[in-house]
Amino acid sequence: MGIRVAVAGASGYAGGELLRLVAGHPEFDLVAATAHSQAGQPVSAVHPQLAGLDLAFAATDPTTLADADLVFLALPHGESAALAAALPETVKVVDLGADHRLADTAAWSRYYGGPHAGAWTYGLPELPGQRAAIAAASRVANTGCYAVATTLALAPLIAAGAVAPTDVVVVAASGTSGAGRAAKAHLLGSEVMGDLSPYKVGAHQHVPEIKQATGAASLAFTPVLAPMPRGILATVTAVPTGDADPRAVLTEAYADSPFVHVLPQGAWPHTAATAGSNSCQLQATVDVDSGRVIVLSAIDNLGKGAAGQAVQCANLMLGLPETSGLSVFGVAP
Amino acid sequence: MGIRVAVAGASGYAGGELLRLVAGHPEFDLVAATAHSQAGQPVSAVHPQLAGLDLAFAATDPTTLADADLVFLALPHGESAALAAALPETVKVVDLGADHRLADTAAWSRYYGGPHAGAWTYGLPELPGQRAAIAAASRVANTGCYAVATTLALAPLIAAGAVAPTDVVVVAASGTSGAGRAAKAHLLGSEVMGDLSPYKVGAHQHVPEIKQATGAASLAFTPVLAPMPRGILATVTAVPTGDADPRAVLTEAYADSPFVHVLPQGAWPHTAATAGSNSCQLQATVDVDSGRVIVLSAIDNLGKGAAGQAVQCANLMLGLPETSGLSVFGVAP
Amino acid sequence: MGIRVAVAGASGYAGGELLRLVAGHPEFDLVAATAHSQAGQPVSAVHPQLAGLDLAFAATDPTTLADADLVFLALPHGESAALAAALPETVKVVDLGADHRLADTAAWSRYYGGPHAGAWTYGLPELPGQRAAIAAASRVANTGCYAVATTLALAPLIAAGAVAPTDVVVVAASGTSGAGRAAKAHLLGSEVMGDLSPYKVGAHQHVPEIKQATGAASLAFTPVLAPMPRGILATVTAVPTGDADPRAVLTEAYADSPFVHVLPQGAWPHTAATAGSNSCQLQATVDVDSGRVIVLSAIDNLGKGAAGQAVQCANLMLGLPETSGLSVFGVAP
Amino acid sequence: MGIRVAVAGASGYAGGELLRLVAGHPEFDLVAATAHSQAGQPVSAVHPQLAGLDLAFAATDPTTLADADLVFLALPHGESAALAAALPETVKVVDLGADHRLADTAAWSRYYGGPHAGAWTYGLPELPGQRAAIAAASRVANTGCYAVATTLALAPLIAAGAVAPTDVVVVAASGTSGAGRAAKAHLLGSEVMGDLSPYKVGAHQHVPEIKQATGAASLAFTPVLAPMPRGILATVTAVPTGDADPRAVLTEAYADSPFVHVLPQGAWPHTAATAGSNSCQLQATVDVDSGRVIVLSAIDNLGKGAAGQAVQCANLMLGLPETSGLSVFGVAP
Repeated sequence: MGIRVAVAGASGYAGGELLRLVAGHPEFDLVAATAHSQAGQPVSAVHPQLAGLDLAFAATDPTTLADADLVFLALPHGESAALAAALPETVKVVDLGADHRLADTAAWSRYYGGPHAGAWTYGLPELPGQRAAIAAASRVANTGCYAVATTLALAPLIAAGAVAPTDVVVVAASGTSGAGRAAKAHLLGSEVMGDLSPYKVGAHQHVPEIKQATGAASLAFTPVLAPMPRGILATVTAVPTGDADPRAVLTEAYADSPFVHVLPQGAWPHTAATAGSNSCQLQATVDVDSGRVIVLSAIDNLGKGAAGQAVQCANLMLGLPETSGLSVFGVAP
Repeated sequence: MGIRVAVAGASGYAGGELLRLVAGHPEFDLVAATAHSQAGQPVSAVHPQLAGLDLAFAATDPTTLADADLVFLALPHGESAALAAALPETVKVVDLGADHRLADTAAWSRYYGGPHAGAWTYGLPELPGQRAAIAAASRVANTGCYAVATTLALAPLIAAGAVAPTDVVVVAASGTSGAGRAAKAHLLGSEVMGDLSPYKVGAHQHVPEIKQATGAASLAFTPVLAPMPRGILATVTAVPTGDADPRAVLTEAYADSPFVHVLPQGAWPHTAATAGSNSCQLQATVDVDSGRVIVLSAIDNLGKGAAGQAVQCANLMLGLPETSGLSVFGVAP
Repeated sequence: MGIRVAVAGASGYAGGELLRLVAGHPEFDLVAATAHSQAGQPVSAVHPQLAGLDLAFAATDPTTLADADLVFLALPHGESAALAAALPETVKVVDLGADHRLADTAAWSRYYGGPHAGAWTYGLPELPGQRAAIAAASRVANTGCYAVATTLALAPLIAAGAVAPTDVVVVAASGTSGAGRAAKAHLLGSEVMGDLSPYKVGAHQHVPEIKQATGAASLAFTPVLAPMPRGILATVTAVPTGDADPRAVLTEAYADSPFVHVLPQGAWPHTAATAGSNSCQLQATVDVDSGRVIVLSAIDNLGKGAAGQAVQCANLMLGLPETSGLSVFGVAP
Repeated sequence: MGIRVAVAGASGYAGGELLRLVAGHPEFDLVAATAHSQAGQPVSAVHPQLAGLDLAFAATDPTTLADADLVFLALPHGESAALAAALPETVKVVDLGADHRLADTAAWSRYYGGPHAGAWTYGLPELPGQRAAIAAASRVANTGCYAVATTLALAPLIAAGAVAPTDVVVVAASGTSGAGRAAKAHLLGSEVMGDLSPYKVGAHQHVPEIKQATGAASLAFTPVLAPMPRGILATVTAVPTGDADPRAVLTEAYADSPFVHVLPQGAWPHTAATAGSNSCQLQATVDVDSGRVIVLSAIDNLGKGAAGQAVQCANLMLGLPETSGLSVFGVAP
């Protein structure tokens, strides 16, 4: 008899990936998948990649979820706080939404608006001390997808004093699943194939989360939609404070992190290499013209950027090996 | 201590997928990956999705391979027969090449040329009686990718007498990994993105294999290269002999096959839904104008079409559950 | 002062391509673009590729359109008949919808439903005698996209008696713009990239149009959605009646057609090679196993399959060179 | 009788686009296409999108080219200088290679190596005074693709004193045709689809050209390969010196430039919207967190980034309208 796991808000892309990971996890029993708009539908009617999964969507209500040992919340921003409050403390919760990520109420108001639900333990295990914090928590706020890619590239460098926390510049491109599953004309295949297009330039809601997680004091952030279903490539540049080797700093920081690969010199991250996995690929260099440190970071936005990371946190919360049910290898080509 | 498994010819796409599956298999130890041209190189330098795999390519020689319990051969056509002959009978072998698929020497000569190595047990477990045959074999010839997609759609209908074995028409489109990893200008990303293009029309080498596996007597086959890395969609049409429901025939044929999903009525196969898995999605209908039976079949050409199928055969040969180390769920979107 | 041209229903994909072609046509003045839902919006807000075009959408009403010399109707099926009836006969009309394509009322009812508006001159100039018919007409029904690709491949062979009109089998894959611009979840980029998926199998509404245009008596038709924005590749197979060389028949049929290229032997059509053009690429062979004739046909579904074809018809109706304002060369790679 | 135009090195991607533009240009006669490795081959055997063009490749030698009024050189870096030297001064030349772009011999040596051929008139007509300079020149060095996208975004801001010339940070992603047509395994479709990957990070050869053209003093540049055949999206960030509105500066700078579109506020550039055209789309904002100016710039790397730009320069050199034979509208979707 395995650990009883439920997924709330399971009809979206992160929800679908959670279902795939939970159904394939050696220690988990998938006991419920909820989705208000799809209640009663077979899961595989919504997620054709899960053909053969004998489960129908339930309505998203606390009674259904309270029966689980652990619940993943993959709900739109603003909806998870109320649902989580209705669950007993004995049910562990990992929230993939933004509701509980930010400690700063003013930042919450500026980028999201509405009442601030307060911060939970931040679900990025690779930050110093965070594995233990997550293991001890019954409520964990999973990271934002851009925040994971950027924080893994930047946090150790700021922590080590290798780069200045000011004047950080980030350009990050994401596959289209990061924009969600709602039917919008600008996300049609006809529009996105062959297209790179920026959006929310200079004002993305992940900026305060990245600053909180990395210690950056000033951050210019440009998100770009890229013609691929999955993947984030973040280009993170910062001004060095001395002549520390940024690659060496990263290598040391992630020596014990099975999902973070600082690549051999000369190799650069590929988003395709992380597809379907919980991996992050990193590489760093110093620009010959400007002297800036440039770090490249690649993840699967639905993997380490969402569902994979959530399972990694759940593993820690449940006392399982961090890698249980997750792959360090990508599905490529 | 797991079962010792080696992969010969591991630098190509099927080889890379085999390494991913073997490394993640709960019962297998990956003891060697050979690749003549890459001997000495870290595996992850060639397969970036395997970053973190601590293994270097060895040269492809029988001594290295003889040390394994089971060897996968992912070599170019014509190379596996000689290598297999140099391995002791106690080493089980699954050959992903074409060398040992055809029983008919004339057909071999017509489509491949060169000396015919003779047929091994055909590695398509879903054919009647084939699971037992594979379980008893120490040498198995893995199926061709187009052959799998077409055979799963067609064989039960011919066997049941639901369609005529003559006048079968197949159009099958494949992702580019099916064309291999050799650097050829017409396979460049710039060429293939946005492009559908037929090739080897009217004379593809999988035709005799499909006829042998399905019992088809006459088969028009048109292969098409499609702008995606993975996946095959086969459209198989045949003339009905009576009014049997083709979907019902397929449903019954695959009732006990965990990897073959005959979809609910109204749902059609999606190649993307099979990516990274060992699944096949099927659906059938009768054309309202012509009365022809039309069956659609989707697989991942590197999964059920190559490496996944090979692992499925290996599981049977080793007495393991058929699904061990394989996923029935695709990585999508 | 050029010929005054208007486009009704100009906010969709065919409409956008019409605007591009009309705006770049050496003899045309684009005097109006109408789109009910977008009236008042700048055209470039809806079609970003037309940045710099100083025009706003008008509402779709007959008064606006009656002021033009020629009107293109790119409206949903069922809407163009009423609008066309409100335009004076002196205004020439090319209808890109299906309303006036079919001569057979029963076929109309079966595939489209609703009242049948009656057939106009069929807008496929490459059919025998059709250039003159189009030049003499003031109302032309533009062809369906799949119908163009299939008819150009098949009609000369049936007309020449080279293949039987019965037992024709067609599989045709289309880029996603063929599915239109309405925001539907299954057409999101995340869904379609990496995916081949059939739809409306065995019952597509272009079947009666193809039979009418080609003389086929029985036609099995399978449409497939392909992961690219534009392009159709049709695989057309039929049973030969003798040993006529199908490629020679096609070469002779299109000797005077500047947009149809029967490729040199050994070369196969590429959809990407037709992108942005009004070209059709053809190649034919005889299958070695079955003896069937196989013809491959590639077009741009928005070019020769819709807007380009419409401009070609308009050129003929207006006494201009057939190629005016159109490209025979594709935009590739 | 039109202007006699030849293209040397016409078998690559920029060469193919030049052939398409020259063949469709109302004032040009395409008199020769040379390609050493393909001499004697029909042009359409190499460029399938040019099916119907009745021309074969010639060998690349000065005698063939000297017969033209204007020659485009689309040769690998280092090859055009020698060929140009062998052409009479009366033959106008536009070199798409890098040989004659840089005024600084040291910069040439650092990034390209070998003897420095010296600078020609720089072929970016939108720079102040450059239209006249190009019109007066018989030798013009066409811009690099990344240099065009970046320079159009940045040069007016530095020239106006709106941003500091130091601490400029650029991340630019390119479609795969920018990497050329040589058959390399890492450029296979299987590798690039679904993949974003950086390359030459911190040391790209376009940096000195960008600094020369924009007046930037310090530039961190990260190029990324994107999964699409065409298009460049450059994200250019710089530190403002005051509170000038960057969008207003750009709007004024390009008021008389038909190919540069500063988009309406709220609209962002799309690479797909520039495909097949000679357009550049620009938008600018000020980052709310960092205060940095962020400019986004989209072009077609084969259009405004190569062949389109070259034709624009040729038009000026020949006294034709700047827009002759070029499109301001993209082929989209």
